[in-house]
Amino acid sequence: MKQSQVLIPTLKENPTDAEAISHQLMVRAGYINQISAGVYAYLPLALRVLQNIEKIIRQEMENIGAVEMLTPGILPADLWRQSGRYDTYGDNLFKLQDRHERDFILGPTHEETFTYLVKNVLNSYKKLPKVLYQIQTKYRDEDRPRYGLLRGREFIMKDAYSFTANRTDLDRIFDQMEQAYRNIYDRCGLDYRVILGDSGDMGGSGSKEFSAMAAIGEDTIVYSDSSDYAANLEMATSIIAPNQVEAPAELTSVATSRANTVEDMTDEYQVSASKILKSMAFMADDQPVLALIRGDYEVNEVKLKNALQAQELRPANEAEIKADFQSAVGFLGPVQMNTQVKIVADLSTQDLSNSLTGANQAGLNWQNVNPDRDYQVSDYLDFRTVKEGEVSPDQQGKLQFKRGIEIGHIFKLGTKYSESMAANFLDENGRQQPIIMGCYGIGISRLLSAVIEQHNDDHGIVWPWALAPYQVHVVEVNAKKEDQQCLGSEIEQMLTEAGFSVLVDDRKERAGVKFAESDLMGLPVRITIGKKAAEGIAEIKLRNQADSIEVHQNDLIESMRILLKNYK
Amino acid sequence: MKQSQVLIPTLKENPTDAEAISHQLMVRAGYINQISAGVYAYLPLALRVLQNIEKIIRQEMENIGAVEMLTPGILPADLWRQSGRYDTYGDNLFKLQDRHERDFILGPTHEETFTYLVKNVLNSYKKLPKVLYQIQTKYRDEDRPRYGLLRGREFIMKDAYSFTANRTDLDRIFDQMEQAYRNIYDRCGLDYRVILGDSGDMGGSGSKEFSAMAAIGEDTIVYSDSSDYAANLEMATSIIAPNQVEAPAELTSVATSRANTVEDMTDEYQVSASKILKSMAFMADDQPVLALIRGDYEVNEVKLKNALQAQELRPANEAEIKADFQSAVGFLGPVQMNTQVKIVADLSTQDLSNSLTGANQAGLNWQNVNPDRDYQVSDYLDFRTVKEGEVSPDQQGKLQFKRGIEIGHIFKLGTKYSESMAANFLDENGRQQPIIMGCYGIGISRLLSAVIEQHNDDHGIVWPWALAPYQVHVVEVNAKKEDQQCLGSEIEQMLTEAGFSVLVDDRKERAGVKFAESDLMGLPVRITIGKKAAEGIAEIKLRNQADSIEVHQNDLIESMRILLKNYK
Repeated sequence: MKQSQVLIPTLKENPTDAEAISHQLMVRAGYINQISAGVYAYLPLALRVLQNIEKIIRQEMENIGAVEMLTPGILPADLWRQSGRYDTYGDNLFKLQDRHERDFILGPTHEETFTYLVKNVLNSYKKLPKVLYQIQTKYRDEDRPRYGLLRGREFIMKDAYSFTANRTDLDRIFDQMEQAYRNIYDRCGLDYRVILGDSGDMGGSGSKEFSAMAAIGEDTIVYSDSSDYAANLEMATSIIAPNQVEAPAELTSVATSRANTVEDMTDEYQVSASKILKSMAFMADDQPVLALIRGDYEVNEVKLKNALQAQELRPANEAEIKADFQSAVGFLGPVQMNTQVKIVADLSTQDLSNSLTGANQAGLNWQNVNPDRDYQVSDYLDFRTVKEGEVSPDQQGKLQFKRGIEIGHIFKLGTKYSESMAANFLDENGRQQPIIMGCYGIGISRLLSAVIEQHNDDHGIVWPWALAPYQVHVVEVNAKKEDQQCLGSEIEQMLTEAGFSVLVDDRKERAGVKFAESDLMGLPVRITIGKKAAEGIAEIKLRNQADSIEVHQNDLIESMRILLKNYK
Repeated sequence: MKQSQVLIPTLKENPTDAEAISHQLMVRAGYINQISAGVYAYLPLALRVLQNIEKIIRQEMENIGAVEMLTPGILPADLWRQSGRYDTYGDNLFKLQDRHERDFILGPTHEETFTYLVKNVLNSYKKLPKVLYQIQTKYRDEDRPRYGLLRGREFIMKDAYSFTANRTDLDRIFDQMEQAYRNIYDRCGLDYRVILGDSGDMGGSGSKEFSAMAAIGEDTIVYSDSSDYAANLEMATSIIAPNQVEAPAELTSVATSRANTVEDMTDEYQVSASKILKSMAFMADDQPVLALIRGDYEVNEVKLKNALQAQELRPANEAEIKADFQSAVGFLGPVQMNTQVKIVADLSTQDLSNSLTGANQAGLNWQNVNPDRDYQVSDYLDFRTVKEGEVSPDQQGKLQFKRGIEIGHIFKLGTKYSESMAANFLDENGRQQPIIMGCYGIGISRLLSAVIEQHNDDHGIVWPWALAPYQVHVVEVNAKKEDQQCLGSEIEQMLTEAGFSVLVDDRKERAGVKFAESDLMGLPVRITIGKKAAEGIAEIKLRNQADSIEVHQNDLIESMRILLKNYK
């Protein structure tokens, strides 16, 4: 392909609104162009990368027997009313009406659509299992779209759905998907981790998340420095050292004039934060819950919500603290708490003796508080945010933190959607059962960003071989010269016949501009055609290496083969 | 691929709401499933056909140097406000708002988007020409979606846009596109015609439409029985026999008590309709226009609108006839017409002597009306709907009518969008000029319907080779038998290695069901594996032929090659 035919609007300067390196590079190198906040055009180079990724995904999906199809982007609201998500999905859902004022949404995900399509069709265990997938444009009306393709409002996803008659098949397909995803990310040249994920609002019994390591990542990945353990911060657990157990001392009330934060208490009473029994008020599905945690830890709301199996969880507001918890704000504590309030405690407090906590009255705390004797807990749960350096829950190694980009997520959905939408099958005994589902997503356009975050240098993008929009960049240093044009076209043909994809910079631009843009664009191999064109000599340089070599066109293909042996 | 893994929800009966054969067959054979009126899921078989079509399109686009990219489906309303189409496009435009109440649309076509993307980029004649295209999902909120994929609200299109510095390049690219489109339709096995098209609201100086012949088609194609002339009914012209010229008789008024339709007048005055000067009142861009036409012809509003170069044209209402035309309804006529009204006349009236027409007063007509003497016409134009049997405008042969499905449309847009959106380039003399544009569309999902309309029989679809979702259907008559399963898998592997795409019906269904569904599905070759499986013998049958032959598996590939020599 001649570069003069392609639309590659490069920029000399970084766009001012681009924080992420991948965003900067994709805009500067002419891969993408913003049409609206979080809505981008994929220009010719970016589309080729997307198509390379899609090809890999299709191969890996086919290998595990998943079958491709394509459902609509615009969906009748009724589908989502059936699952209940029309009302609960929140502001991220694009809603619209047609000319007859019927409600529609733009699909952010397609559990309902696929469930609707298989309902009454996969109506017997004989027709199960089935694994279906699509590669499709999705819509989420993000409040703060940013980082280019990383958090967009229109994006491309591969979403797969499995339908099985039993958990064994679900588990098998889930494992096959995990392996397929690993293959996909490996082939894309990504450094990633498979972590325990939060199932969030998807429902279901388990999930794994795939996270690409990158400083710009919005997720914190917790992993062991000496084992395979890895989890999203919202899911991570740890083993913490037991508390030093003391003989229970007498419960005493003490007055304070401070606001009574943990810092206030450690300062006023000269104790470490680990001796404070921090009490936090929440409303879980509209019921008051008091969550106890050691003063040196933080409550992780996602973990707490999951541990409580709540649909919705939020901190109680001042009015609720007064009315439902019958406590002064800042002085919450479990001792003599209103019996209408459910008290749950983090495992860090289970053996915490002689602690300090609020007495539910303004200006008053309790000293020497002890579990069982002074307060009762309905459940001990794990809802603290883990800290770096703690022992991994598999007892192997210590926990480390890294930033990551979520690039995939696979879920064991179970029967959440098949039950709400009555998608049933007859089992071997002729009994109606809800179909057991799984869903499996990869953010394709986002992968493009993740790969560039990991594959770049000071001069631009450095594409892994499998994803490069073109593998070879033939640069005619002075495209006005006939011998260079001539050799350029000859080499293009030679390479194309040898199976390489080739972009020929035939533009009549200054050499400096052409080299800088070539580096920016990041194709794996550059072949420079300059003064020795008449002799049939060109220069080969790999994008990820500094040196170049001169070769005669007759030796070009062979030299490329040798040079590329270790290029990935 | 094993059929047991694929989602193919066949139906025994035709869906009650499906009028078009292609719609019936696609639903019955499990290709598509309706999610909402005019919104369909492409099930696995349909997606494979779409992908086959897309592959052909990509090859033909690449051959003429068009470069693929992908723009968003959701577009900020401001883009369309710049071109003016946000307000003029009408109810077919899906409109929505994001969470911040900013206006968006779902793109029904992308002239504005591409113009926006090249603006300030293709800013010099040196960067022109460029031809860009995308394959993308489009949205049109049709009032009456119907015929399955033929008139949908969400559909897939290939849309290309050319940007040139001069008309010569536009003409060249337009011609290349026409040839590429012909290649595409030929490869899809379509019977089609290239016709003069109506540019409609796209603007621009010329267009060609590609129409697939089909009884269900919504367009009437007018073509000569002895030449290449073909046009949409909205564009067709003809040569009509001159009127018999009489010496002008005296203008006389005559009273009538009837409603004064053409039928009333021929009856009352015992004249042929061709002696009546029919007068019709229109509002063209809010100006009153009286259109005169011979009584035996109909005004074609699209032709009239184009001939008047009006943005908008509609019949005048009663109030306007009274106020602006100062006439009684039913008695319009050009004699002594209000001078504020523009009078245009169809060519059929130019030599019409001694005609009959309304006198603008209720119950009164003029007899012996003659042009120039009794009324003045500002322009003689061609705005009549042609009739079958008239002489082709190239004087070769007579006009015939056929129904057709619009499967493609190419437009010379000119500078309509570049001017309204200020997309300019510097020409060789350093002068700013608006970029000259063309646009070129193929309805891909609609092609699927058009092909099936032409390729079916009483038993189901009969796919052309190039589009078939799988080329070979291997049917295990009794899939419970191990020898049949075994031979089925062997033959699948053998065929796959020979480069065929294969679907194996491994389902444990009755043989009758399997054969009926196989015919319905329409794969070009069926290989039946039955009682002689243990001997390695199977039966080959082409979908478009009645006979089958028995072959040993060792001779299978060779036999297929011979049989398929003439299959298209």
